[in-house]
Amino acid sequence: MNANLEFSKLDGLIPAVVQDTANAEVLMVGFMNQTALEQTLAEGYVTFFSRTRQRLWTKGESSGNRLRVISAFTDCDRDTLLLRVEVEGAGLVCHLGTRSCFAEELPVQSPEKGTPDAQKVQP
Amino acid sequence: MNANLEFSKLDGLIPAVVQDTANAEVLMVGFMNQTALEQTLAEGYVTFFSRTRQRLWTKGESSGNRLRVISAFTDCDRDTLLLRVEVEGAGLVCHLGTRSCFAEELPVQSPEKGTPDAQKVQP
Repeated sequence: MNANLEFSKLDGLIPAVVQDTANAEVLMVGFMNQTALEQTLAEGYVTFFSRTRQRLWTKGESSGNRLRVISAFTDCDRDTLLLRVEVEGAGLVCHLGTRSCFAEELPVQSPEKGTPDAQKVQP
Repeated sequence: MNANLEFSKLDGLIPAVVQDTANAEVLMVGFMNQTALEQTLAEGYVTFFSRTRQRLWTKGESSGNRLRVISAFTDCDRDTLLLRVEVEGAGLVCHLGTRSCFAEELPVQSPEKGTPDAQKVQP
């Protein structure tokens, strides 16, 4: 199997976005090399390449919270993946014990910064 | 503003997942450097750092399909962003004319490959 993806932009890796099919929540982003991608598509469970451990890493291999791939997509540049999954086990994907790894909100300025809502409703 | 994110893992860049608040669809993934992130959070519109053009790139700056940031999250490792957005203009994010860049499906093997459903229901 060769999905003919573009691995050269990031030293052999591509980012893979993991989205929960149950509620469309974005759970995490990991990285895959060619071998991790082939294993993921062949086995139907998400395997990343761990940048910190420098080895293949099947998500949930120790916790049991494996990610079963329901469908996989690549983007127009063929340098990113979107994996729609079902979470097995307890369903807690993040090692901090939350369902999604994206748990910390950052403050964002509204484009209407110069026009506070209070001004808008005044006559 | 300093969101204190981890830019060192990818030579000064972090991936940013863009998700549509209207229907939770994952639209695209781009990359941000520190300046792109600061500009995004300060202005409320998504600005990436284009790897091919090596410059800041406010998505939709020419097409009008800007991405207004409704909320922004970072993950447990602080090395990835999730941006929930409203798409302005015609709503077509991908330069190929589709709403999402993730338009090409890849074949995935089912984990039950070796155990066809027909076998399961047999006594």
